[in-house]
Amino acid sequence: MSDQRLVRPAPISGFPEWLPEVRMVEQRWLDRIRDVFERYGFCSVETPSVEVLDVLMSKGDTSNEVYTLHRVQNDGGASEARLGMHFDLTVPFARYVAQHFNSLTFPFKRYQIQRVWRGERPQEGRFREFTQCDIDVINVDQIPRHFDAELPRIIHEILTELELPAWTININNRKVLQGFYEGLGISDPLAVIRIADKIDKIGADGVAGLLTSELSLEPRQVSACLDLAQIRGTDASVVDEIRKLGVTSPLLDEGLDELSFVMDELSDLPSGSVVADLSIARGLDYYTGTVYEGKFVDWPNYGSICSGGRYEDLAGSFIRRNLPGIGMSIGLTRIFAKLVAEGIVKPGPSSPSQVLVAVPDETRYALARATAAQLRSRGINTELYHQADKLSKQMRYASRKGIQYVWFPPFDEEGIHEVKDMATGDQAPADPAAWGKSINPA
Amino acid sequence: MSDQRLVRPAPISGFPEWLPEVRMVEQRWLDRIRDVFERYGFCSVETPSVEVLDVLMSKGDTSNEVYTLHRVQNDGGASEARLGMHFDLTVPFARYVAQHFNSLTFPFKRYQIQRVWRGERPQEGRFREFTQCDIDVINVDQIPRHFDAELPRIIHEILTELELPAWTININNRKVLQGFYEGLGISDPLAVIRIADKIDKIGADGVAGLLTSELSLEPRQVSACLDLAQIRGTDASVVDEIRKLGVTSPLLDEGLDELSFVMDELSDLPSGSVVADLSIARGLDYYTGTVYEGKFVDWPNYGSICSGGRYEDLAGSFIRRNLPGIGMSIGLTRIFAKLVAEGIVKPGPSSPSQVLVAVPDETRYALARATAAQLRSRGINTELYHQADKLSKQMRYASRKGIQYVWFPPFDEEGIHEVKDMATGDQAPADPAAWGKSINPA
Repeated sequence: MSDQRLVRPAPISGFPEWLPEVRMVEQRWLDRIRDVFERYGFCSVETPSVEVLDVLMSKGDTSNEVYTLHRVQNDGGASEARLGMHFDLTVPFARYVAQHFNSLTFPFKRYQIQRVWRGERPQEGRFREFTQCDIDVINVDQIPRHFDAELPRIIHEILTELELPAWTININNRKVLQGFYEGLGISDPLAVIRIADKIDKIGADGVAGLLTSELSLEPRQVSACLDLAQIRGTDASVVDEIRKLGVTSPLLDEGLDELSFVMDELSDLPSGSVVADLSIARGLDYYTGTVYEGKFVDWPNYGSICSGGRYEDLAGSFIRRNLPGIGMSIGLTRIFAKLVAEGIVKPGPSSPSQVLVAVPDETRYALARATAAQLRSRGINTELYHQADKLSKQMRYASRKGIQYVWFPPFDEEGIHEVKDMATGDQAPADPAAWGKSINPA
Repeated sequence: MSDQRLVRPAPISGFPEWLPEVRMVEQRWLDRIRDVFERYGFCSVETPSVEVLDVLMSKGDTSNEVYTLHRVQNDGGASEARLGMHFDLTVPFARYVAQHFNSLTFPFKRYQIQRVWRGERPQEGRFREFTQCDIDVINVDQIPRHFDAELPRIIHEILTELELPAWTININNRKVLQGFYEGLGISDPLAVIRIADKIDKIGADGVAGLLTSELSLEPRQVSACLDLAQIRGTDASVVDEIRKLGVTSPLLDEGLDELSFVMDELSDLPSGSVVADLSIARGLDYYTGTVYEGKFVDWPNYGSICSGGRYEDLAGSFIRRNLPGIGMSIGLTRIFAKLVAEGIVKPGPSSPSQVLVAVPDETRYALARATAAQLRSRGINTELYHQADKLSKQMRYASRKGIQYVWFPPFDEEGIHEVKDMATGDQAPADPAAWGKSINPA
């Protein structure tokens, strides 16, 4: 032990870290998410953690959240000062598609599961380092509407497989909003969208006030906007409700057509899990059609657990091609951390081992090692205890690590192996060449 | 398309990025590595990408490689200026063990597969962002020698499963070196180790020169040091060769005992894959016993592909407990990038889909979608073509993405499904409830 002054290790605010038994669950989640993405034919892409600042800033609005990289002792090279950590996976993906345009097959369908970094003030549901799970489709000139329905179906399948507490995926269409506002004779529909998006935070009265004071809308316009924002429904019948408001415009027709297509396509999903909600707008200006926002039912103010939408021109800063896209993102860390904090995520075992092969004494070490190797070769995760020791100590080690089976090798190759099930206490003879067919796969 | 000035996307030196068909192979590698680590009972740990600088600097010697994080517009909070990106996974692991000491079961066996960052000048085999795959065992007061042999066995299994071109894992023991130099009457054995470690770069004559000029060793001492460094062997017989040099010391005896234990334990591995090599020292001062260094046989100067060793007190900066450990690390990016550059890694398909369900016309879309869902529910990765289109176009899409089977749904539910194998050109009737039992798993 050194006599030097200790550096006390402590958590860093906004940078989550898990014990092994919790990480085990997170890893299982990540595996499931990846499985579903691949089941639908999305390929994996990873990009560097950094982009040059010009790329990160090409969308303009997040500059003070970006972390930039510097050397402790800068050697005079200025190049690194231009690097920033990515704050989402959409901008890096747009850059990736533009850069590798000639090597990709379109429509290009990728998933990307990576950490992102934001220099925000940490608070519940907001981290400085967190893992996002994104899928996007990007194509030349047009995105078939098939994807407007397939993406929420994929995310639905994932959220279902993860057995999360009650949630909904809310769906809207920016063309419906914009077309409706245009039909009302409003000259700046985007300004209305930006204000209407705050309805969660400031309520209908707050929105009405801003529409009047900031945009000088007439009472009839304000009232129609609020009527629209209050429409919610679990199927395409919301379209009739919207039409009943008596507003028309070509863009509105287009949006309603798209919205009813999506709701119809998803009508086989459990009722209430996908909801058309005309109040959601997704603040980001680049969405142009279908938009998505998932929420926990019991924690409506916790923030979205997934979100996304259709955009016309995300790579336009990087390449002179028309590359529209559609994407959704699961906020893995936000969801996972909440469910850990609520005690809903139950920690797994702290070891992936299914079997601990005991070493009762030094003479049986070689046979124990051979037995462990044999079990491993049969696909069973097997730990060999690291030295001859009291059996009670070895069994306690297995219990603490959540290893279900302890294996006792015989004294010689002719002897009989035995296995103890730590869950039931049963101990029985076992053949290392055949045992374990009924245990759960690793 | 926007008219704004384009930000030309370009690779960032030292930050590798792969096309989907290459990423597919990297992902398969990562899966295999993880499988083997878990097969031996190591649990997964991930730590934040950052540590406070005091933690990163506690080993002192890498300060100018550390990237620190800053905000584009600092809001006056000074706390973030103290964060640096981790440059390896050993220091974060030591901090993790100290911080969570009371929640872990010892010996604590973890693997950690993460990116690390070093502000180095990029060159062949050296990256600024790269993925390391580490396993370590850490324990209170003592590490059983069982692990000195188990760790290289695990890495051996991985390198074998990855089917790398010829490699060796070289093994040495710092006690042998230090004990031998002590037995020669050398007062500062660590200084000799530091110089002897350069034999790869400056040759035996260069080492002899430095031992004479810098350490004032006598010719007999220099000659014995060089004799030792030239000993290599594939089994425990190297111990006899070392003894023949006629040097003795208690520490040397201890080291030789450990070295022969490791070589004996690994004697079942293919001859020549694990080599006792008395010239390797691993420059880092914290190693105290067995050390490892893996190399490609055909590219001896490319740098190590894996490395590690035993250390007595890595967490000593963070906790007043005696926590020795032993670890090995695979330089995944270094290996992978080399084999991609050499054309040895063959790209996989650019899609994980096994089947593309075609949509020959709009009327068959619903049945195509249902068929795709049925195949997915049976564990087959299945892409649904995104719109009705010419079949030649849909088949070309499948070919380009490396999707082996194209599925043609019938006109109605009573009709006959057909599947085309794009590799052979064969087309045959198929039942979506039963087809595909013989295709490779996803």
